Amino acid sequence: MSEGLGVVGVLGGMGPLATIDFMRKMIEATPAASDQEHVPVVVSSIPQVADRTAAFRGEGDSPLAAMVASGRRLVDAGAGLVVMPCNTAHLWWDALAPALGLPMLHLVDAALAEGVERFGAGARLGLLATDATIASGLYPNRTPAGSGLQWLLPTAAEMLQGVMPGIAAVKAGDLTAARGLLLPVAEALARRGAQALVLGCTEIPLVITAAGAPLPVIDATQALARRAVAWSLAQRSAVPA
Amino acid sequence: MSEGLGVVGVLGGMGPLATIDFMRKMIEATPAASDQEHVPVVVSSIPQVADRTAAFRGEGDSPLAAMVASGRRLVDAGAGLVVMPCNTAHLWWDALAPALGLPMLHLVDAALAEGVERFGAGARLGLLATDATIASGLYPNRTPAGSGLQWLLPTAAEMLQGVMPGIAAVKAGDLTAARGLLLPVAEALARRGAQALVLGCTEIPLVITAAGAPLPVIDATQALARRAVAWSLAQRSAVPA
Repeated sequence: MSEGLGVVGVLGGMGPLATIDFMRKMIEATPAASDQEHVPVVVSSIPQVADRTAAFRGEGDSPLAAMVASGRRLVDAGAGLVVMPCNTAHLWWDALAPALGLPMLHLVDAALAEGVERFGAGARLGLLATDATIASGLYPNRTPAGSGLQWLLPTAAEMLQGVMPGIAAVKAGDLTAARGLLLPVAEALARRGAQALVLGCTEIPLVITAAGAPLPVIDATQALARRAVAWSLAQRSAVPA
Repeated sequence: MSEGLGVVGVLGGMGPLATIDFMRKMIEATPAASDQEHVPVVVSSIPQVADRTAAFRGEGDSPLAAMVASGRRLVDAGAGLVVMPCNTAHLWWDALAPALGLPMLHLVDAALAEGVERFGAGARLGLLATDATIASGLYPNRTPAGSGLQWLLPTAAEMLQGVMPGIAAVKAGDLTAARGLLLPVAEALARRGAQALVLGCTEIPLVITAAGAPLPVIDATQALARRAVAWSLAQRSAVPA
C-alpha cells in the first residue's frame, strides 16, 4: 500500500458542485480498473469563504483568511500538493501559496498550456469567467510569452445579464436556468471570431460541455485535474516498490 | 463565518465515484442558494484500502488499518463527525469507530430507518449489495426490533454473474456494462415479491436510480447524506450567532 504517497489536496467548496466536478475529472483522467489504482485525494470543501468576486470589487470581505484555514486542513490531513478548483480564488494565489507551504498547481496555467497545445500560437480564445477574473486580467496576464494568444471577452452587458447570473444559478443548483443564461454568451463569442472557448470559471463546465458548445472548449477544471493526476502517478512511480 | 462548526468528515475512496455520488447527494439535500449556505465537508478519498469483500471471504488483507489511517486524516483536518459511504466497510465499524474517537453515523441504520418510514413494518425489501454485505447478514442483523422487515436476496448465481461483476464495472468506470449486469437482478427481486429495492452498495445507485428501477428504491447513500446534512445544520444552529 502506498497510501501516504502522492496525496492530492483539493482546496474546494468554491463552489461545492465544482469541487465534485473536479474530483470526477480526476477519476476520468486516471487509468484504473479497481479502487486501488485511483489517485489518493483529500478534500477540504468548506464553502464558508467570502464571495471572491464581491471582494475583488471592493464590496465584500477578503476570502484569504478562510482559504488559508481551509488549505491548512489539507496540510494537516497529509496532502503533498494543493490544487484549487476555483479560477477567481487564484487572485489570492500569491498570498495563499506561501501560507500553505506545499507545492501548488495553478489552474489558469494549466488551461493556458492546453490552449496553446491544442490551438497553437496566435489562437483567438473566447473567455467565459467571473467579473473578477475578467476585470483582473487573470488569463491575459498569465498568457505564456511568445504564445501570441488573442482574447475575446464578453461585453459588460453580457457579463451582468448572462455570465454572472448563470454562475449564480449553478451555485443555487438550477442548471437549466444556468445553461440558458450562459449559452447565448458563448454563441456571441463564437460570432465574434473565437476559435475556442475557455471555461474559466469552475461552475461553467457543469452546464457548457464539449458536446453542447458552439465551439471547441478548453475546460480549465479538466486541465487542472489531468495535471494533478499526473503529479500523483509520478510520485507513486518515483518510489521503489 | 462558522467554518469550524459542523464539519462533516467523509471517509471515502471506497470507491472514488461513490464518494462523489455521496457528496452530490449531500449538496442536493441542502437548502442553499449560494456557496456559503452549503455544509462544510472534509473528505479523505484514499482508495488504497484492501478490497473489503476479499477480506471478508478470507482471501485478502484486512482493510482496517488503512481505513483507520484514512479516518485519522479527517480527525486531523478538523471533522466533527465521520460518515463512510461504503456499505461493506461497515463490517469493520465496531473496530473503526472507537479508533477514530469521533461520532459516526451508520450507513445501514440510515437506510433501514428510511425503509421503515416509507414502506412500513413488515415490508418486503429486496437487497442489492456485495457478497460480503449479504453473507455477513449486515442488513438483516441490524433490522430494527419490531419493524418486521422481510428480506429477499439475490441467488448465488445472480451474485456471481450479475451483482459482483456489475459493482466491479462501476469501479472500472464502465457504467453501461454495470447497468446491464445489475438491472436483471433487480428485476428478479421484483418478480419474487420485493416491494422496494435497497441499494446496499454505494456503487449501485450510480447505475440504478429511482427513475430507472423496476421498483421504488431505498438509496442508502442518499439516506446517509440526508442525515449528515441534518447533523451539520443542527450544529450550526445550536450555536449563538
